[in-house]
Amino acid sequence: MHELGVVYRNIQRAERAATDRLAAFGASTVHEAMGRVGLMKPYMRPIYPGAQVSGTAVTVLLQPGDNWMLHVVAEQIQPGDIVVAALTADNTDGFFGDLLATSFQARGACALVIDGGVRDVKTLTEMRFPVWSRAISSKGCVKATLGSVNIPVVCAGMSVQPGDAVVADDDGVVVVPAAQVVQVAEAAAAREANEAAKRAKLASGVLGLDMYSMREPLQKAGLRYID
Amino acid sequence: MHELGVVYRNIQRAERAATDRLAAFGASTVHEAMGRVGLMKPYMRPIYPGAQVSGTAVTVLLQPGDNWMLHVVAEQIQPGDIVVAALTADNTDGFFGDLLATSFQARGACALVIDGGVRDVKTLTEMRFPVWSRAISSKGCVKATLGSVNIPVVCAGMSVQPGDAVVADDDGVVVVPAAQVVQVAEAAAAREANEAAKRAKLASGVLGLDMYSMREPLQKAGLRYID
Amino acid sequence: MHELGVVYRNIQRAERAATDRLAAFGASTVHEAMGRVGLMKPYMRPIYPGAQVSGTAVTVLLQPGDNWMLHVVAEQIQPGDIVVAALTADNTDGFFGDLLATSFQARGACALVIDGGVRDVKTLTEMRFPVWSRAISSKGCVKATLGSVNIPVVCAGMSVQPGDAVVADDDGVVVVPAAQVVQVAEAAAAREANEAAKRAKLASGVLGLDMYSMREPLQKAGLRYID
Amino acid sequence: MHELGVVYRNIQRAERAATDRLAAFGASTVHEAMGRVGLMKPYMRPIYPGAQVSGTAVTVLLQPGDNWMLHVVAEQIQPGDIVVAALTADNTDGFFGDLLATSFQARGACALVIDGGVRDVKTLTEMRFPVWSRAISSKGCVKATLGSVNIPVVCAGMSVQPGDAVVADDDGVVVVPAAQVVQVAEAAAAREANEAAKRAKLASGVLGLDMYSMREPLQKAGLRYID
Amino acid sequence: MHELGVVYRNIQRAERAATDRLAAFGASTVHEAMGRVGLMKPYMRPIYPGAQVSGTAVTVLLQPGDNWMLHVVAEQIQPGDIVVAALTADNTDGFFGDLLATSFQARGACALVIDGGVRDVKTLTEMRFPVWSRAISSKGCVKATLGSVNIPVVCAGMSVQPGDAVVADDDGVVVVPAAQVVQVAEAAAAREANEAAKRAKLASGVLGLDMYSMREPLQKAGLRYID
Amino acid sequence: MHELGVVYRNIQRAERAATDRLAAFGASTVHEAMGRVGLMKPYMRPIYPGAQVSGTAVTVLLQPGDNWMLHVVAEQIQPGDIVVAALTADNTDGFFGDLLATSFQARGACALVIDGGVRDVKTLTEMRFPVWSRAISSKGCVKATLGSVNIPVVCAGMSVQPGDAVVADDDGVVVVPAAQVVQVAEAAAAREANEAAKRAKLASGVLGLDMYSMREPLQKAGLRYID
Repeated sequence: MHELGVVYRNIQRAERAATDRLAAFGASTVHEAMGRVGLMKPYMRPIYPGAQVSGTAVTVLLQPGDNWMLHVVAEQIQPGDIVVAALTADNTDGFFGDLLATSFQARGACALVIDGGVRDVKTLTEMRFPVWSRAISSKGCVKATLGSVNIPVVCAGMSVQPGDAVVADDDGVVVVPAAQVVQVAEAAAAREANEAAKRAKLASGVLGLDMYSMREPLQKAGLRYID
Repeated sequence: MHELGVVYRNIQRAERAATDRLAAFGASTVHEAMGRVGLMKPYMRPIYPGAQVSGTAVTVLLQPGDNWMLHVVAEQIQPGDIVVAALTADNTDGFFGDLLATSFQARGACALVIDGGVRDVKTLTEMRFPVWSRAISSKGCVKATLGSVNIPVVCAGMSVQPGDAVVADDDGVVVVPAAQVVQVAEAAAAREANEAAKRAKLASGVLGLDMYSMREPLQKAGLRYID
Repeated sequence: MHELGVVYRNIQRAERAATDRLAAFGASTVHEAMGRVGLMKPYMRPIYPGAQVSGTAVTVLLQPGDNWMLHVVAEQIQPGDIVVAALTADNTDGFFGDLLATSFQARGACALVIDGGVRDVKTLTEMRFPVWSRAISSKGCVKATLGSVNIPVVCAGMSVQPGDAVVADDDGVVVVPAAQVVQVAEAAAAREANEAAKRAKLASGVLGLDMYSMREPLQKAGLRYID
Repeated sequence: MHELGVVYRNIQRAERAATDRLAAFGASTVHEAMGRVGLMKPYMRPIYPGAQVSGTAVTVLLQPGDNWMLHVVAEQIQPGDIVVAALTADNTDGFFGDLLATSFQARGACALVIDGGVRDVKTLTEMRFPVWSRAISSKGCVKATLGSVNIPVVCAGMSVQPGDAVVADDDGVVVVPAAQVVQVAEAAAAREANEAAKRAKLASGVLGLDMYSMREPLQKAGLRYID
Repeated sequence: MHELGVVYRNIQRAERAATDRLAAFGASTVHEAMGRVGLMKPYMRPIYPGAQVSGTAVTVLLQPGDNWMLHVVAEQIQPGDIVVAALTADNTDGFFGDLLATSFQARGACALVIDGGVRDVKTLTEMRFPVWSRAISSKGCVKATLGSVNIPVVCAGMSVQPGDAVVADDDGVVVVPAAQVVQVAEAAAAREANEAAKRAKLASGVLGLDMYSMREPLQKAGLRYID
Repeated sequence: MHELGVVYRNIQRAERAATDRLAAFGASTVHEAMGRVGLMKPYMRPIYPGAQVSGTAVTVLLQPGDNWMLHVVAEQIQPGDIVVAALTADNTDGFFGDLLATSFQARGACALVIDGGVRDVKTLTEMRFPVWSRAISSKGCVKATLGSVNIPVVCAGMSVQPGDAVVADDDGVVVVPAAQVVQVAEAAAAREANEAAKRAKLASGVLGLDMYSMREPLQKAGLRYID
């Protein structure tokens, strides 16, 4: 359950080296390496193309139209963190802009993932501070109601524990539980090692039907070819 | 993280008596009693008006277009349970119909909460088996891919642990962590005890402005009256 | 523009008798009588079927997740008013429930039209206090930030001035500018007087093609019949 | 492709008796009997609960905000027809109301399926003229631009040929190609004959896991039970 | 109310110099300078990134699927104007393309803001004629039904009077009432003057918590830190 | 109706030369040349700006969350084809990524049009393999259930026959029936020949009102100018 009005200062972050490796694999490979779980809803989109990051989650729960807690969470950021902001209700207001980004960047955050809106996107793009959000909106926020920092949250349909690893790119945002990050990084690496050979084969005209031996199971499933 | 292909048979259910009390309070009162947390997204709607239930959550994670695991979860139902079905991706197919409802009812389930579609709603209404869902759809499902039973899930934006209490009515669906159900039931009762007096006052023409002593804080916030 | 933090106490309400006549015509006939304008977006739905009302608009502008101003607007209600609540940003929280409805009803309000969410819908239905809203949600609100009362607002895509007439039924919500309410009521009455004769003709099998003399314009527009 | 400005007067309607049998089976059973195809998108909802119809499709293609062709299609209706109205672009205007319904009913139509909006729903409900639509809206239409009648259309994501059988109920709308209606009605009957026995078994507590012999395939797929 | 079939030729445009200054501040700063009002819904997006404009509003009301009035409004454009197009019902058709853009540009318009669709976006991008719209669509329009020019409209949820100032960039579209444009430009300038100093402080690691003196109000609101 | 489990190997492709000409005209011009029909829903968006293609449709019907048939369709691709993928139910999973793109490209496909999700968009962009889709998502797919290849499908609201011509660019996706491709290419060419002259006139300040002789019909329709 969401507990309101608390800030947890000490969280257990996912192992640093494995977390940092995830960025290079990207969201889709990590998602597959986890067994096809961990993905946030696809409405979460980057504000500019090409960003590809991974980091440890510092979580914050916000009230609709109120960005007070983003100032509170700033203090809890450590280098390599990604701030993951959830909301108590759907809202697209612009919770975050260039001033907060300056502060987050100064603290060492490498990205923001927010299930709400963001603004100053032109400046954020120039700063190369990547944000994945559900909306872009100028709508300003009040600072009146408490949320919480570093509690478990649900962001864009995915459960996030403080300290989990997060990987995000043009394909979306994936959450890796802290306890699994080493094993997932290895599985992702193994998966990627395989891909170059597969790609070469497919590029040469070999069909997936043959490469993956799908013809027999397709036939068993009843597939009929008609000339 | 979602673990696929497992069924947890032994779960710790929320205290029965407190769980059963929640239905009478309804979703909105329980949501307030918890400090305004625990609510699923408002797109979850009952298939017929007037149903008001509470029960202990048996959770199931489904793949899009595949209802195989609903047969698996049926076996884990105990009287007083509510099945909470989450999906690995947004999908509105009709995962559940009158046959499964017959089975669930025979096992003692009092409702289904599903972040997908449902069908046979006319028969379900006649059976008085309530369902809260994101859609109504005739679309049939395959039985081909594993999900899991009684793992933590995110359903309609809310995190649900197996055994949590769930309360649902025309206003929506609220999840109460098992550990808090006794205290929440008491808080809800206290809240409701207050309401009759408040309602009588308001009905007599007393304004909330006076009953809640809002005039001074409104003035302090800068509210101006213009004639 | 929206001015925040003000309450206009004296508004010019649309002529009472003409306003009260509108309910019987219903939203669609009034919308046609106005020349097919004045309609709110069709996502505004009644919480129960069959309600059909008209009244004078008392407007209120709310912040997302904050229902403080609904207590402020209650004091400005006069018998025959309909409260029209707009929001500064899209939000589906439950701004209004049975206690506020008791207060509104005690003041003489005949309905609420709100571009947000509402809760306690079972009780509201029993009270026969009709609400047209964009959502139903248990989500509770804070009381922290000022909006305004009786300023011009945009509700569900339609501009509403305080004092305008509002008519709402199962088809939707229509706004009639105060200055036009007498003329619109007359136009609606004229329109309705026509309908019984038309309906009888159509029921007897006469086609609209002939009753409205459409065959020639259709032919001119190039319609071809193919056997 | 959509051809504009034509009315096909002679269409081949699906076999009457088989078409008429479909109503009793309902949309979900017919959809299953067809091999899980034929279903329109689930946003198509009935304007009142409980209606359950089948009939032969008379199709019409409308322009956004323009209901001229609904008068043209009225003349092509024969008893037992269901009018299926598609649009050239998404639009929720109220294309159809009680006058057109009177005309359609006089011609023998048993329902309207429209990928747009409808109005006068209270009167339509009293008339028991069922409509499945994507929206309810007072918004009136102009009569200015040609569409077509009895051409193949796409309505709510499903391809419909003039003369196809259509079955609709609270679960949705299913289209059966004219050439298959006899065979589908038989398959639906066979399916239904099976259901009573299954329901009795499930009601007695037999699990779907056992009734459908799912335990072995689930185990093969790797399902693990954890105590 | 929307009046149909009229063109107002003489409108009072917002003060030119102040209007022209707004572009440099951008939508978010102007929105804040107005007290957080004036913003259109965030579904309004630019067809290419980086455009940042301000101008005086020439308004036009369109019918769904009909772009006739865009030719009428072209004649009313003066250099420095932004055309603001509202619709009588939601519709995503492509109302505007490269030919109309050529005409608008020849008349001196600096942008189009349209609560509908637009097409030829590749050519518009090459022409550097910016458009903010709710959709991109090839769908062509008819020229059959009147709307109006230079009447008050509601565009993307915001009320716009002819002559109002409009500012638009990657963050969205903000409307400034003509009477307030000088004062808002000054407030925006004051706001911006402040930002460089704030940004430098935040970049140096000072927290917003301290810079804005939030620690005390947060504590008063009950925020608890847990180690 | 959708037939499941079949692959049609021999399809009649639209005339090659005419099909190939369509790309240069673009989606909007082709849509107009067809009489304003043939357009898919505007939610279909390219994964990167600037791609402009035409080709012959090879169709595939997929089940939600299952991309097995994309491997089957790969074998049926001939140079100059565009794969058009429809789904049996709305689903945004990532059905297609860089490996399948490598295979499709090796077979000579020039694009994918899919009424679902796609992933690896950064790599696809680098490969210049254009995709029009309803979503971008990392979500992986299973390979368990049959669909069909080269049957008639409905993709994003538009009916597509195998062999039809498809043209897609930043404005959207248009389908041209195979039998009409020569005539449509000619009509598009004629339309385009006209545009340069029109553009020059409009650029010189001539109004569409005069160029298209709209003043008289507008006056007849009742347009009034008010000074």
